Amino acid sequence: MSELQEYGGKATMEKITSLAKRRGFVFQSSEIYGGQNGAWDYGPLGIELKNRIAGAWWKEMTRLHDNIAGLDAAILMHPRTWEASWHVENCTDPLVYCKKCKSRFRADMIPEENLSAKKCPDCGGELTDTRKFNLMFKSHIGPAEDTASVIYLRPETAQGIYVNYKNIIQSNRMKIPFGIAQIGKAFRNEIVTKNFIFRTCEFEQMEMQYFVKPGTDEEWFNEWRRQRWAYYKKLGVKMDHLRWHQHGKDELAHYAKDAYDIEYLFPMGWRELEGVHNRTDYDLGRHAQFSGKDMQYIDQDNNNERYIPYIIETSAGLTRNVLMILCDAYDEEQVAEKGNAGTEGSADDWRTVLRFHPDLAPVTAAILPLMKKDGLAEMAQDIRKELQDDYATDYDQSGAIGRRYRRQDEAGTPFCITVDYQSKEDGTVTLRFRDSMEQVRVPRAELAVRLRQEIKSYKRIK
Amino acid sequence: MSELQEYGGKATMEKITSLAKRRGFVFQSSEIYGGQNGAWDYGPLGIELKNRIAGAWWKEMTRLHDNIAGLDAAILMHPRTWEASWHVENCTDPLVYCKKCKSRFRADMIPEENLSAKKCPDCGGELTDTRKFNLMFKSHIGPAEDTASVIYLRPETAQGIYVNYKNIIQSNRMKIPFGIAQIGKAFRNEIVTKNFIFRTCEFEQMEMQYFVKPGTDEEWFNEWRRQRWAYYKKLGVKMDHLRWHQHGKDELAHYAKDAYDIEYLFPMGWRELEGVHNRTDYDLGRHAQFSGKDMQYIDQDNNNERYIPYIIETSAGLTRNVLMILCDAYDEEQVAEKGNAGTEGSADDWRTVLRFHPDLAPVTAAILPLMKKDGLAEMAQDIRKELQDDYATDYDQSGAIGRRYRRQDEAGTPFCITVDYQSKEDGTVTLRFRDSMEQVRVPRAELAVRLRQEIKSYKRIK
Repeated sequence: MSELQEYGGKATMEKITSLAKRRGFVFQSSEIYGGQNGAWDYGPLGIELKNRIAGAWWKEMTRLHDNIAGLDAAILMHPRTWEASWHVENCTDPLVYCKKCKSRFRADMIPEENLSAKKCPDCGGELTDTRKFNLMFKSHIGPAEDTASVIYLRPETAQGIYVNYKNIIQSNRMKIPFGIAQIGKAFRNEIVTKNFIFRTCEFEQMEMQYFVKPGTDEEWFNEWRRQRWAYYKKLGVKMDHLRWHQHGKDELAHYAKDAYDIEYLFPMGWRELEGVHNRTDYDLGRHAQFSGKDMQYIDQDNNNERYIPYIIETSAGLTRNVLMILCDAYDEEQVAEKGNAGTEGSADDWRTVLRFHPDLAPVTAAILPLMKKDGLAEMAQDIRKELQDDYATDYDQSGAIGRRYRRQDEAGTPFCITVDYQSKEDGTVTLRFRDSMEQVRVPRAELAVRLRQEIKSYKRIK
Repeated sequence: MSELQEYGGKATMEKITSLAKRRGFVFQSSEIYGGQNGAWDYGPLGIELKNRIAGAWWKEMTRLHDNIAGLDAAILMHPRTWEASWHVENCTDPLVYCKKCKSRFRADMIPEENLSAKKCPDCGGELTDTRKFNLMFKSHIGPAEDTASVIYLRPETAQGIYVNYKNIIQSNRMKIPFGIAQIGKAFRNEIVTKNFIFRTCEFEQMEMQYFVKPGTDEEWFNEWRRQRWAYYKKLGVKMDHLRWHQHGKDELAHYAKDAYDIEYLFPMGWRELEGVHNRTDYDLGRHAQFSGKDMQYIDQDNNNERYIPYIIETSAGLTRNVLMILCDAYDEEQVAEKGNAGTEGSADDWRTVLRFHPDLAPVTAAILPLMKKDGLAEMAQDIRKELQDDYATDYDQSGAIGRRYRRQDEAGTPFCITVDYQSKEDGTVTLRFRDSMEQVRVPRAELAVRLRQEIKSYKRIK
């Protein structure tokens, strides 16, 4: 599809990657050994951001719904699962190799003229025929490395939900319609990984599978499209950076009756962030066939009517959401910071700021003593101890206060609490807001309550 | 070591396994395909319990410490990592096979007389010599399955911390002593998996590696032993079910100067729950050697003194902690429940109750309308909506109120809120406590604050 909108954001992939490494959001995996392709490590700020994004999704999808249960299925599943799901046969990329320079390419990602002429786009050498390459990581379980011991790393989390659907009906007395939500890792042996953490071999998914009566599937499909769109709005994401993309007939997966992606306008263009799919009764039907188990739902409120439910899936990338939130929050601006009493006063300069929603920010409040001396550091530490049971806090006493604000801006910390000489006199501290850089004085004893109010009433201003 | 104490608890592994399946804590993985050995799926209550145990550890180890940073390294690491860590050479089990019945055994787990006579303990057939069997799951990354593309599933999470130690010093301006904490999955191709989720092929670890100056390592080792012991006390674990076990000279790992395990008295006996290890400078020294990178710390506050830090490790099993908390919380007792006004009154019977700490309980409060009719269900749903943003809630309107209390007891829900006819008159509801089964009337508007108080002041009574 055409790029309907200019990017407009101030983030570039270079800036995001560099900030991510410098501030400890994301590191290259096994960097001291030259890096491991397709894998990334989440540093101190990155794991907090990832956990909060996962937590916000989990709360939205389980706690705020009466009829959605959580699940955490194992990565190692019985290999028959992947025959039933068609992955053994069909989770493949089309690959071609150059006989001359030995480069390999995904056949669908090189120009059509190279493919038809069988000429390498790099060196002009002869290309092989296109071969199907299975993307599942294969290993062996037990002591023997033979066919009987083959096991795969799951290439998607959804199947763990399908094979447990009867267990969960039974243990949690679920009635249709109901959902099962899961967050977890999946692995694909991607030959072409790129765009930082956007496409990787090891990644995390946040999926909810909603089981409905056939015939009501289109209605629920639309309802979940509505809810998932509203979710991103609630998180404060720039809504003009989101759009729907309906899968054309040629794009629809073999199991899908209808499918829409939520796409986000990343610095490299519009890319899939989440999919809402009507998977019909395909998955449960296949598992019934391959396992020999009855996968029908028995509707006890309706004359014990039996049917295989249709499934509406909402499937989002967690690690992809981390990249989206980083890009979405990224801003640069020229600022004139208001000085604190006793500091160097206002300074004209540029700042990089991550405008995270306070629910997602790795650090909620940084406590900063204006000076280390005169008991200010001790008072700041005391305040930290009072707040740290309920809030993620940071403490920083080194460098000019303006520079410390910049460091917190770059980490996306929504609130700074500065302890100065007036604090010792009247027990108030400065509460400084990341987005507006405004400062107000707040009695120390009211901090915890005030923070709670500010978080609940947060509105993004830029 | 001898069993110093009788078990005494009311849990048995059979009861725990059965309750776990029935109530949706833990299911057998891929059960519809006959199960996948060594892997388990966490159901709706299980994933909430696991998340809360992980969250409590994470908060304790990162948020409540100024100088411990979080990390989430990838499962797929560069294979040189496992040469440096000695796992390629040494992460092995000694295996023997029976040539007659084809059974396989861990050589250290069959009687010595069978091993020396080379006779199978099952059929008396001839046993093979003992062979080293590597426990790492091996796969291939990229399109070719050759030596160059070998990749392992990490058999422990610790190495992800070591290879990132310089990244974290740089991005987070850490100064020694400091720690790095991580929760994540690890995989071992265990031939003998047993005791439910105690020993599995796919498991989760919660590890904190603390980097200290050589010479201060013994002091920090003792300090971390103290802190980790205090942690379990804070969680309300039965302290007479915990003990220290110091590794003897024959048990010490090749990298360890000293090592203590915290053991818990499970129904099957005393077993390791967590280890506190003095790993010396072994790990960083090996990574310096294998990567060619300088792994020395530069002490800028002390004339740029350089040294390879010693590491004190606290390493706990998360999935093992789940089993421990289930066993520890399990209780059965004969009860005479106080009736609610308008119900069937008191009933003499037995109950199964999970006495989880409220911070760990999968559901914090269940809201129960005494009757569905007369607007009680609507009022209960309203209360649920008021509470669900801050608390994990459940709603149950089916069956006698006594039976509903039993269901919540069995799920470990610490608080039940019952809406009855008096609620409509005076706006109060019944707050029922799981442990004591006592009931008090509380104004509806005070519920959120009251719950917060009850959670903070919780003391285990049995």
